[in-house]
Amino acid sequence: MRLLLTGAGGLVGRHVAARAAAEPGIDLVAAGRSHPTDLPKSAVFHEADLSDAATASALIADVRPSHIIHAAWETAHPTFWHDMANLDWVIATAAMAKSFAEAGGTRFVQVGSCAQYDWSDGRCVEGVTPDRPATRYGRAKLAAFRAVEAAATDRFEAAEARLFHLYGPGENPARFVPTICRSHLRGAVPRLGSGRHRRDLLHADDVARALLALAKADGIVGSVNVAGGEEVVLRDVAEELAEIAGAAETGLGGREDGPDDPERLVGAPSTRLAAIGWRPAIALPDGLRATFEWWRLQPELVR
Amino acid sequence: MRLLLTGAGGLVGRHVAARAAAEPGIDLVAAGRSHPTDLPKSAVFHEADLSDAATASALIADVRPSHIIHAAWETAHPTFWHDMANLDWVIATAAMAKSFAEAGGTRFVQVGSCAQYDWSDGRCVEGVTPDRPATRYGRAKLAAFRAVEAAATDRFEAAEARLFHLYGPGENPARFVPTICRSHLRGAVPRLGSGRHRRDLLHADDVARALLALAKADGIVGSVNVAGGEEVVLRDVAEELAEIAGAAETGLGGREDGPDDPERLVGAPSTRLAAIGWRPAIALPDGLRATFEWWRLQPELVR
Repeated sequence: MRLLLTGAGGLVGRHVAARAAAEPGIDLVAAGRSHPTDLPKSAVFHEADLSDAATASALIADVRPSHIIHAAWETAHPTFWHDMANLDWVIATAAMAKSFAEAGGTRFVQVGSCAQYDWSDGRCVEGVTPDRPATRYGRAKLAAFRAVEAAATDRFEAAEARLFHLYGPGENPARFVPTICRSHLRGAVPRLGSGRHRRDLLHADDVARALLALAKADGIVGSVNVAGGEEVVLRDVAEELAEIAGAAETGLGGREDGPDDPERLVGAPSTRLAAIGWRPAIALPDGLRATFEWWRLQPELVR
Repeated sequence: MRLLLTGAGGLVGRHVAARAAAEPGIDLVAAGRSHPTDLPKSAVFHEADLSDAATASALIADVRPSHIIHAAWETAHPTFWHDMANLDWVIATAAMAKSFAEAGGTRFVQVGSCAQYDWSDGRCVEGVTPDRPATRYGRAKLAAFRAVEAAATDRFEAAEARLFHLYGPGENPARFVPTICRSHLRGAVPRLGSGRHRRDLLHADDVARALLALAKADGIVGSVNVAGGEEVVLRDVAEELAEIAGAAETGLGGREDGPDDPERLVGAPSTRLAAIGWRPAIALPDGLRATFEWWRLQPELVR
């Protein structure tokens, strides 16, 4: 398998890169805006702004991958929800998919999101819950995968991994788990909401294994939930991290909850992923502990 | 209203152009690969290959339309069903939508297709029948409108007109009604299938009125069926045309039916279109007669 991984420096990408590089039979080509410092040495790296359609398309024609895991996307937090740059990624993804078809590629795994679903039910079931994205990000992810499906041929299969909430080393410092870790490491009290919301939380390494499993899973097409199925109350995460940090205060109740945060947003685990043997391997307390330790080693990101 | 009409030389586009040019308050800018000979003189024309994203985007930035009716698409019959050029139109449409948002546009009416629906039920109901396109064309139309929706803002509304079967002056000579008209006009017997299939057939001028009504209908967003709701048996069309032509033979049963032709493919008329006063005005026999007369005046296309 000649695997092109985009967004290799992101939370998902760096974990996919680590897994893919360690696996025999995978010839890994990674691409992104800048060379990730922790990219495995066996990977070939292309520095490229893939949000530019011509660049993205030329990269595929050059690399001629048999497989793609397309994790690159606009991720500046929290502006990515409504940024018009999401359209650039729709355009670039469509261009990549067309080039991939022309280059004889076989499986395109698009990294999608629970934000593509209708959230009103709180639990998103693959193939059942309707698509009804409430944000430009969700709508753009939906458009992008529809474009990949439109490029698919008899030999090129299109699969979409719909990710729910994830955490782990390398996450955007502005997000929930990093905010808590960084505050505790500075000796400050994080400013958190009530923590009453329920989420489906996976460690990025578990997500990476799911993406690689999907890349290899000939015949699995369409949208696939990458979800653990366990409902985690965010309060428990905050309490766990305070305990790990040895902090006296969790920071819960330090600010109002956001008006748009759904009470419950979890995924029904994909039976198709279960059938190919994937299930999460990292228990939440272990994952949180390892993530906290990772942040401890990044003093320049903690400030 | 400053209306940009793309695909102005196509079956839909030429009828929209005729209607729009005759309507006070519409400043019509038409675009297409070549200047349509019958484009109303009051329209400004831009010769442009809009399947090129940069060209399409630059046109919007230049014209700064308040409204768009985007009728341009790959239409070479019958290769358009699976042509990879459909991807170029996805990319170009996404680029147009982004430019339209940036230029302060207000309503983008995308010309969609019944080919985006799941056809297994035979009758497609707006908002009820799932999207499940069986062709690259249908998948690409779906991706393109999802991209337009992703570009929509508080002031830019995205609507999609899902067209069913249409006919009228200017149709692609290789399609059903033109094939019959041209054969009779040459004194030949058309080679038709059984004619047992049922379709929703609208005159292109009725479709043009629907598109203009949608362009003006602030607040109507998402996918809208442009369908008459009357099930027409194609055999009746062939018999009507033979009678109009004074031909002894209809040509029905002259060849096998195509294996992929659904028995029944009709649309439930949109209640939202009915609410703004649109309904078809051209009865089928009248429309067929006028269309036959139009073909009689195009001897170079009859051969």
